[in-house]
Order: sequence, then C-alpha cells, then structure tokens
Amino acid sequence: MSESGPIFLPKGFKFSAVTAGLKASGKPDLALILADPRTTAAALFTKNRIVAAPVELGRAALAKSGGRLRAVLVNSGNANCATGQQGLRACRATCAAAARLVGARPREVFPSSTGIIGVPLPVAKITCQLKPLISGAGASIERLRQFADAILTTDSRPKLASAPLRSGNGAVTGIAKGSGMIHPQLATMLVYLLTDVVATPAELRRALRKVCDHSFNVISVDGDTSTNDTVLLLASGASRIRLRQVRKEFETALLEVCRSLAEQIVADGEGVQHVIRLQIEEAKNRAEALQVARTIAHSLLVKTAWAGADPNWGRILAAVGRSGLKVDPKKISVTIGDQTVCRGAVACKFDERRAHEELSHAQCRVGVRLGRGKAALEFLTTDLTADYVRINADYST
Amino acid sequence: MSESGPIFLPKGFKFSAVTAGLKASGKPDLALILADPRTTAAALFTKNRIVAAPVELGRAALAKSGGRLRAVLVNSGNANCATGQQGLRACRATCAAAARLVGARPREVFPSSTGIIGVPLPVAKITCQLKPLISGAGASIERLRQFADAILTTDSRPKLASAPLRSGNGAVTGIAKGSGMIHPQLATMLVYLLTDVVATPAELRRALRKVCDHSFNVISVDGDTSTNDTVLLLASGASRIRLRQVRKEFETALLEVCRSLAEQIVADGEGVQHVIRLQIEEAKNRAEALQVARTIAHSLLVKTAWAGADPNWGRILAAVGRSGLKVDPKKISVTIGDQTVCRGAVACKFDERRAHEELSHAQCRVGVRLGRGKAALEFLTTDLTADYVRINADYST
Repeated sequence: MSESGPIFLPKGFKFSAVTAGLKASGKPDLALILADPRTTAAALFTKNRIVAAPVELGRAALAKSGGRLRAVLVNSGNANCATGQQGLRACRATCAAAARLVGARPREVFPSSTGIIGVPLPVAKITCQLKPLISGAGASIERLRQFADAILTTDSRPKLASAPLRSGNGAVTGIAKGSGMIHPQLATMLVYLLTDVVATPAELRRALRKVCDHSFNVISVDGDTSTNDTVLLLASGASRIRLRQVRKEFETALLEVCRSLAEQIVADGEGVQHVIRLQIEEAKNRAEALQVARTIAHSLLVKTAWAGADPNWGRILAAVGRSGLKVDPKKISVTIGDQTVCRGAVACKFDERRAHEELSHAQCRVGVRLGRGKAALEFLTTDLTADYVRINADYST
Repeated sequence: MSESGPIFLPKGFKFSAVTAGLKASGKPDLALILADPRTTAAALFTKNRIVAAPVELGRAALAKSGGRLRAVLVNSGNANCATGQQGLRACRATCAAAARLVGARPREVFPSSTGIIGVPLPVAKITCQLKPLISGAGASIERLRQFADAILTTDSRPKLASAPLRSGNGAVTGIAKGSGMIHPQLATMLVYLLTDVVATPAELRRALRKVCDHSFNVISVDGDTSTNDTVLLLASGASRIRLRQVRKEFETALLEVCRSLAEQIVADGEGVQHVIRLQIEEAKNRAEALQVARTIAHSLLVKTAWAGADPNWGRILAAVGRSGLKVDPKKISVTIGDQTVCRGAVACKFDERRAHEELSHAQCRVGVRLGRGKAALEFLTTDLTADYVRINADYST
C-alpha cells in the first residue's frame, strides 16, 4: 500500500523544505506550505490529554483566525511536547517570525512538530532558516514531494495521495507521516489535506469529521495515541469550484485520499509484516463494531498469532468475549480469507493450510460476525513482530 | 518471585496426580483434590463472555450444591473451550464418573481445564485414569506438589504459597498456574486456595472477593483475559477454627497467599525479563487508579521501553494522557526508582544512567502521581520482549 495513481497539484499552494539541523541525520527537517490569502481551514487533533505545544497553539490559532490560514510550518526531529511554558514560547516565536516574513498574522501560521519529546525546541535553528525556506517555496510536484520528505521521522517512505475534482479542474491532495512511533520516543501522525475548492471553515470541518471517522479513526498500529496527532484540511478556493456545489464528489475524493494515506501509514508501521483488514459485521451499531475491532486489534495474543500467520481463531474469539459487549457466543462466527473457521463459538472444519497461506500475504482478511444487528466496519491493523519490539526496546546509555 | 517460606498442609484435603495422555509431553496432566465432607467453597470466574465448559458447569455446580464441594478435578493439555454442547457433555461425563468413585454427587465435583482450545476433550483418556487418580490421593506435601505440577501448561515452574493461622493450628495454602498464555492457544490462570477453617460459603465469597481485588485483579502480563480463569477457595473446617473468630488473621493470610501467587504468575510470564511494580498515587479513587495502571500496563510503547530498560517517561506520560481520565497535565509526575523524572508533565533533570540501572533489575519500581486525590494502588506488570513475540508467533503447519 504505497502511493498509487498520479498526484495532482491543488491550485493556491506553494511548498518548501530545508535542513535546519533538528534531525541528527542531517536530512531536511523544516517544511512549509504557503497558502493563498483566502484559504480556509479545519483541523482535528489528538484526543490525548497530554498535548504538545504546537497542538495547543494550532488549535488556538484556528479559533482566533476564524478558520483562516496563510502558512503551515512543520518541523521534524523534535515534538515540542512535555516542554511546558518554554515550549509554548518557542512555538509562538517561530510562528511569529514566519508570519512577519510572509506578511501574515501569527495566528495565520499553523505549527506542527514531530520527533523526540521532552527536549526544548531549538528556536534559533528554525528562525535562521525561515528566509531560505520561504524564498524557496514553489507550486510544483517536486516541491510538494520535498515537503512530504521533510516531515518524516521513522517512516520508511513519504505518503501522498490525490484525487481530481471536476475532471482535474480541482483537486484534493494529502500528505501524511506516521509509522507507529518515533524511535526512541513517540508516535505522531501528521496529515495535511489540500484542496482548491471554495469552502467555509464550517463546511470543511463537517467534511473532515465525516471522512476521518472512515479513515484515520479505523486504523491502529499499536493502540498508543500520540500527543501531537494532527489532521489539517486547507481549501485555497483557487479553483473557484464551490464545495457546496460538488459536495458529494468532494467528500468522495477526500475519503479516497484519506483512506489511501491511512493505509500507507498502517503498511509502513514499524516491524509490520502483515496488514490485516478486519471486517466486523452484524454489530448493532458502528460504535460497538469499533469497540470489538479495537479489542481485537490491540490484543497481544491476536497480533502475535498474525505475526506467525497462525489461523488461531481462539484468540480472536476470546478478544471478542472480553470486548465489553454482551455478545452471545452462539451467534459469533470468525472467517479467515473466505473460510469460516469458527461458527457459534465452536470450531468448524476448515483447511488450515489454506488459512495459514491467506495469513502469510502482505494483506489479509479476517472477519467477525456478531449476530447482533446490521452495522459493519472495516478496520485496518497490523501484526506484532519481534522486529517491532526490537525497534522500540532498543536503548543505549 | 518464586515460592517463599514453608508450605503448610491444611487439614481435610488429599491430593493426587496422574498422566492421562492429554499433554503431548507425557507429563502428568490430570489432578485431583479430595475434600472432607463438610467442605465449603466459593469461586470467582473469568469475566470473558466466551467461557469454557468447565467454567459454565463449575459455576452451576456451586450454585446447585449451595457452595459445598467434595472434589476438584483438573486437567491440563485441553481447555475444553469453544467445544459447544459436546464440550459440556464431556465435562459432565468426567465429573459424574469421578463423583461415583468418590461417593459424592456430580454437583460436588468441581471441574477445571486448561490447554488448547477448540479441540474435543478426550473423555475416555480421563475416565480410565480416575481409579488410580483417586486411590493414589494422599494428605502430604509431596502429593500437594504433584498436584501443583500436573496443572501446569507453559509455566516454567509450579506456584505455591502458604500462611499459617493461629500459630499453625490452621493454614491457608494456595496453588496456581498461569504464565500469560498457552502455546499455541490461550492463557489461563487457575488458582486453588485451601484452608481448614470452618466457614460458610457466604463468608468465603466475601473474603475471596475482597482479597482478589488486591491480588489477582491488579496484575497483567498481556491484557488478554482467558476463557477459563478460575479462583476457587475451599474450607474443610478440619482445624475447627471458625473464620468469623479469626476474620482479620484469615484475610491477612489469604491476601498474603494470593499476592504471592499473583507475583509468581507475573514473574513467570512468557518472555518476561522485568517485573514492574507500578505505583499509582493521588488518584480520586481506586477505580481511576486501576484505569491508569491498566492503560500504562497495556501500552506497547511503554512495555517495549521497559524491555530495553529505557527510562522513557514520555511514553508513560502519553499513556496517562489517553487513559480516559480528565487529568491535568500540570499535576502529573513520574518516578523511576527513587528519582522524579517528570514533574507537571515537563522533563526534570535526573540521572539517566541511574534510572536505566533501576530498570535493568528483575524487579523495578515506576510511580505515577496524578494530583487528583488520595487513592493509591500497586499494580504488577511486565515488559514486552522479542521472546514473548517469538513464543506466541511460533507456528508451523
């Protein structure tokens, strides 16, 4: 699950990236999106109660500006989290400096950070690179790809997805980073969604919420919620297409882009060998389908069985049983690929070799039917490998 | 954390174990406790909605007999779970056969099973060994140890704990099994607590519930709840000491035994290198302390950091933040050993090498203060190692 299809350049945006020296590797780590003056915005943030300075200030900036943005300033290599008042001051200082240079208000510069936590953000390293960053901005696919590269941390590859609107007169394009967690610190998922339709911030919020529920909210690598997660949607209006006139097409395009980015994030999860498409069916409603999916997706027993391509349906069944729902065992069945392996919570005869083969693929299908109603959900998750543990347990004094 | 101190033999019980051929290894796998006629009992079972046949029938037997038991029949090598009606018939058949031989009613024989799930219980293998099993029963420490051995599955060692009552005139002795999960199937924790005090089933239930909340309910290896978990408390009355006259001493002894067994189970968890004593302080109440402890104890990020003895408090802080409590970051602090490493959700200066050393021990102390109230809790959990993954991902067709 990597980038698929052509990447469209939404009108009204410029991109740039430079090396500010925040990453020890010396790779680009400071990235910028410049947006046309009438650009509107909506964002969703982590539900973690511990949030990084840029999340706190980014939320406040959108509220103060009434959902208007001129620039997005992203650094990798430092999460600016658990840095207290000093962290807030550092974030304000970089946004204010960038705002001066682009001729905008500080509240119109949206900050994001990802990387190590608990370490002060080196403000001077960032501010002295702002001029080349801004002067180098360009409206090209090449610059867009430079932006996508500079926001990465432990990701093994950049994540882009795109969908045209009205036969290419408009576009929705997304850029994401995230691969489970950042060595040796925390996971962060950052997603920037750009479109050139004309839309109010309220229209964007509505679309974003709806689409996230069916993309970023139905994936999990390790069940840990980052302190910095951000999904930002920007609409430049440059295509002159009004969102309200293409609502259905727009939401379909946005969903397609978000699902592709969500899949790219899961597939690039640390140590991941198998991506599991977990299909929960016959739930009473979406909430309980999600509850069952998350219990299964976070079970160490289930995730380690998947790492071994082991068709061990007993572990899946036990996870359903402890999910908190008052399930009736007699109505539960489990499928691996196209075979039912357990029906009424009792073993079925099935071809174990074929089930093992199904689970050996890079992408596998596992299904659970609850016999409670008609709601269904697809949840994307991963196996848990010894490599994952090694990557995240690695520590040297 | 292995067996410590002398093991006392509670009066009124006999023990036995034989090989019935349920384990491929050929090790003993059928075990029995015979109890004096006036023995009372109370039990707690798994909260999983998917329960094994012996859990369903054991619960029913205690209800029907009014909390009176004459025998406990345990097999390892087969969990008799996800076996449907056939599994219930198999369990009834073995209990009825044992009841006939010991001159008791079927409802007075309490069944337990642990091992592979989804495989029919081989009834004949069990019933044809009941005669030697019963005739071999004896009231000795040696026989007690044979019982403790025969109920093991992937455990690396038997688990026993004991406390005297009234200077040895009475005793509480416990036997447990459990080590996270059973290759290639499910975890099961089985615990048998024996005492020779005189007690009503209601008195036993009260004591058992109270004590379990402070022992087996505050441990976790992998967060997966088995379908077969059972804690059974038997009181033979043979010491003539009345529980109500020694309530405090009895509950202290029972708690001591249960905590020791709980610690032995955690220390023997699969792949475990470090046992973590997680101290949650300044919670509003016990329930929220438990919620925070469980979120930390089940975080893959935290558990893998512990595997590397990595004093990565950011991961702990992030787990507290996503625990569901409306914590105030400014009031949270984290300690490793005796050092505060984070205060007000901001990094402290601390000796990182010393924190790393603390986490390198077989047992480590990690503390979290929430600044919300006065409730505290100690929770026992483990790291997550690559060995754990290997053990549980191992699969061959």
